Amino acid sequence: MRTTQYLLSTLKETPNDAQVVSHQLMLRAGMIRPLASGLYTWLPTGLRVLKKVENIVREEMNKAAVEVSMPVVQPADLWIESQRWDDYGPELLRFDDRGNRPFVLGPTHEEVITDLVRREVTSYKQLPLNLYQIQTKFRDEVRPRFGVMRSREFLMKDAYSFHTSTECLQNTYEVMHQTYCNIFNRLGLDFRPVQADTGSIGGNASHEFQVLAQSGEDDIVFSTESDYAANIELAEAVAVGEKHAPTKEMALMDTPNAKTIAEVVEQFDVAIEKTVKTLVVKGASEEQPLIALVLRGDHDLNEIKAIKLPEVAEPFEFADEAEIKAKIGAGVGSLGVVNMPIPVIIDRSVELMSDFTTGANIDGKHYFNVNWERDVALPKVADLRNVVEGDPSPDGKGTLLIKRGIEVGHIFQLGSKYSEAMNATVQGEDGRPQTLIMGCYGIGVSRVVAAAIEQNHDGRGIKWSNAIAPFTVAIVPMNMHKSDEVKQEAEALYEQLKALNIDVIFDDRKERPGVMFADMELIGVPHTIVIGQRSLENGELEYKSRHTGEKQMIAKDQMVEFIQSQLKG
Amino acid sequence: MRTTQYLLSTLKETPNDAQVVSHQLMLRAGMIRPLASGLYTWLPTGLRVLKKVENIVREEMNKAAVEVSMPVVQPADLWIESQRWDDYGPELLRFDDRGNRPFVLGPTHEEVITDLVRREVTSYKQLPLNLYQIQTKFRDEVRPRFGVMRSREFLMKDAYSFHTSTECLQNTYEVMHQTYCNIFNRLGLDFRPVQADTGSIGGNASHEFQVLAQSGEDDIVFSTESDYAANIELAEAVAVGEKHAPTKEMALMDTPNAKTIAEVVEQFDVAIEKTVKTLVVKGASEEQPLIALVLRGDHDLNEIKAIKLPEVAEPFEFADEAEIKAKIGAGVGSLGVVNMPIPVIIDRSVELMSDFTTGANIDGKHYFNVNWERDVALPKVADLRNVVEGDPSPDGKGTLLIKRGIEVGHIFQLGSKYSEAMNATVQGEDGRPQTLIMGCYGIGVSRVVAAAIEQNHDGRGIKWSNAIAPFTVAIVPMNMHKSDEVKQEAEALYEQLKALNIDVIFDDRKERPGVMFADMELIGVPHTIVIGQRSLENGELEYKSRHTGEKQMIAKDQMVEFIQSQLKG
Repeated sequence: MRTTQYLLSTLKETPNDAQVVSHQLMLRAGMIRPLASGLYTWLPTGLRVLKKVENIVREEMNKAAVEVSMPVVQPADLWIESQRWDDYGPELLRFDDRGNRPFVLGPTHEEVITDLVRREVTSYKQLPLNLYQIQTKFRDEVRPRFGVMRSREFLMKDAYSFHTSTECLQNTYEVMHQTYCNIFNRLGLDFRPVQADTGSIGGNASHEFQVLAQSGEDDIVFSTESDYAANIELAEAVAVGEKHAPTKEMALMDTPNAKTIAEVVEQFDVAIEKTVKTLVVKGASEEQPLIALVLRGDHDLNEIKAIKLPEVAEPFEFADEAEIKAKIGAGVGSLGVVNMPIPVIIDRSVELMSDFTTGANIDGKHYFNVNWERDVALPKVADLRNVVEGDPSPDGKGTLLIKRGIEVGHIFQLGSKYSEAMNATVQGEDGRPQTLIMGCYGIGVSRVVAAAIEQNHDGRGIKWSNAIAPFTVAIVPMNMHKSDEVKQEAEALYEQLKALNIDVIFDDRKERPGVMFADMELIGVPHTIVIGQRSLENGELEYKSRHTGEKQMIAKDQMVEFIQSQLKG
Repeated sequence: MRTTQYLLSTLKETPNDAQVVSHQLMLRAGMIRPLASGLYTWLPTGLRVLKKVENIVREEMNKAAVEVSMPVVQPADLWIESQRWDDYGPELLRFDDRGNRPFVLGPTHEEVITDLVRREVTSYKQLPLNLYQIQTKFRDEVRPRFGVMRSREFLMKDAYSFHTSTECLQNTYEVMHQTYCNIFNRLGLDFRPVQADTGSIGGNASHEFQVLAQSGEDDIVFSTESDYAANIELAEAVAVGEKHAPTKEMALMDTPNAKTIAEVVEQFDVAIEKTVKTLVVKGASEEQPLIALVLRGDHDLNEIKAIKLPEVAEPFEFADEAEIKAKIGAGVGSLGVVNMPIPVIIDRSVELMSDFTTGANIDGKHYFNVNWERDVALPKVADLRNVVEGDPSPDGKGTLLIKRGIEVGHIFQLGSKYSEAMNATVQGEDGRPQTLIMGCYGIGVSRVVAAAIEQNHDGRGIKWSNAIAPFTVAIVPMNMHKSDEVKQEAEALYEQLKALNIDVIFDDRKERPGVMFADMELIGVPHTIVIGQRSLENGELEYKSRHTGEKQMIAKDQMVEFIQSQLKG
């Protein structure tokens, strides 16, 4: 590609409204432009990267699944049948067509594929079947942000597998796990598959594929000594601390100025590990509208874990001050486990505590030196908290580390959630109808582009891997418009590299070398060849690596071979 | 691909609701399935073809333009700015997002690309620029039909070029004309570029690319002796007949039972070429609300030509009987050119007529032997009619033939329609702002698939060209499950062909050979290799061509080479 026949559209200034590095660099490198909130046009440089990611995803997926393409626009009937018409909320964009029939813009395609398979597949003999597509999706996000990281329209690879046994699903699930590893490895990303919550899609088991990056929205948890890895939402927190016998008498004390754990710790010189905090949340049943969840003072509630308790309402909601006061008789600063009139559930680590401090359920008072069984019956115990760094790994090997990640893939063992709701059956081996068992497998193709940038950039711009660079090689001629020799050499080299199917950009603009270098670094071309009058006189060209910054002089007639070896690496 | 790991989904029966052959065969061959009216899922076999078409379009387009990707969802503002918000009608699907902001599903992208270019391109030095995308479009057709031929969601290649001079636009237009020829040639289609009307998109010049097929919705017109070709909507009709001097006196006669041209011809023994018909249509101005258009009795009105007359209202509408009666005093069966109280425009061929018959504008009466100037002043003359076969070609070379065509591509010299409405300017060579001049260029990628089938099928199914076949080679083993030798040979050949990157389908089902042959013929695989125990004993395999139906025995160890030579052809 010649720059003069291209739409380079690089920007010198960082746009004000872009908060994360990938969004800033995608705008500055002329990869994307906003059309409206959460809607982006992919300019040539961006689209070249997106297509390379898409092709790698397709090549690897073709080894494990068969490609189809479903409509973006879906009839509402199917969503009503699966009950997601009511469950999905306003992220599901709904509209009527000219005949006043209701439709949606597909945010995902479980309904459409289940409908297809229940029509096309009649016998267990046709299974397993794994179908995928790479397609534009739409989610009407309440707050689109971070460019294509959380946009409303985005490119997704979604796959759906169909089975008559859980074993068969698990086999395909493992194949997809490996396929995803192969994809993200080929993309050159530092990533981790982690155990994840199945969330609103439902199902039994699930893994996220997280690209490690400071700016990630997810906390992911690793063991120092095993391959245990999970999203913090899901990571099991084991009990920490040791169980000791009581040493002091329980005492009720006035604590008028201690409304928070921090104030109790400071004013009464107790260790934070000797305090508990009591959070009141909405209950799942009318009989028990409020539930008290109790954590060690230094631990944080994990709402995903709380929702999974049968006692706790979904969606998760804290009780408001007035409700608490009316029911318990004390404000949020004075709640505790002694004489609590609503059901109490304590975290595993709280069970091990002794001589601890807790609100008295009387405003301005706390109990000190409380001990289970002696002073108050042991309530229900559950895993309620987020793990913290240094916690033991739940597999018993090593301790936990926490890093930030960007979710770029997610695989689910769905089970029969959709096939049951939509009555999708096949004839089983015994001749009877059998409800299908499903898996689903997503990759955020456009989000991968942003995640790759978050992980690979510097002050000058993006640093692409060879696999997904918009161009792998840049030819930057110095003052070509004044030197026929430079021009001839540049043109010849350009034709040679093109003939080898190398994605080369030839910066043939009448610009100062500094402008050209800055642009090629900004858009992240991994390999640059500089052609100057001076070095040509020595029969040499300069090579510069975007990744190491190193420069090398290479004999003119060895440059093509040298570049080929760099592209293999 | 192994059939057992694939979703073949062929049907024996022709679905009732499919009217055209391509729709029937796409359903039967398991290429598409309906999801809702005008919405189709592409099954694996269909998608393989669609992707091959898409890739050929992309490869050729990349030689002439730069690829971008714009959102499917577009903000209404831009459509209001271009004035198409009002002009486009209900085919433009409109909806509000969760924030009650109005959006549309893009049926085409002139607005979005013009908005992009006015922001990104500031100087004439950055031009010409030719940008394209291959993307899902949505048009809310009032009557979606013929499968993917006229669906609501479809895949389109749309390109837009930007210039500061008409000359430059014409250069790019010619490049695109050639690019389209290259594309449709590579696709293996019998097609014609024809002059076309610019319709509602507007602009100066335009060509359609029409695939010749009986089922086409368009009439296209060719010269027998030159390369003149046009859509009948546009084809210029020259005057036919010869001018003769009057030979008889004009006579007013009672014609109570002759309300149509056919009845006049029959009851009064006049040649149809000696009659005229008078059609009353709505006028463009309040002063002249009705206009009479007059054609020779055997000619048909061309509404597109009529609309282009300044006197005629757009959109085209016939006057209703009551209006005609009120204004002229006679019903539609008795209208004519003598004493007509409303403006009259006659077709070129009518000007040459003498001694002709016309309604008298008195119910139940006609004038016979009317002659221009002697009996009635010559009105305005215009090209009003559709050409018919045998008409002289408007370029003076040969006569015209008419065939049916399917429009698969359309290129336009748009001019400044959008750039003016949207104030898209660049700095010109003289330093002053200059309004951009645009071209636009579309290919209906999904429609190409249907058109190729309309042109290439027989009673057994589809006959694909090598270029776009879902699979180019089928391996059909006879009773593989009973013969290890057949199985080994089939497996080995399958691996060999796959290793050569040949798109091979290996029918490894436990089916009778007849079922397998029928399916491979239905889905249109061009080359089939039959592996049977008997021929293997002679060291041979059978080759069968889908196009010629010919069978050949080929030595086992020469089959791969033979197939490679067939694929080159």
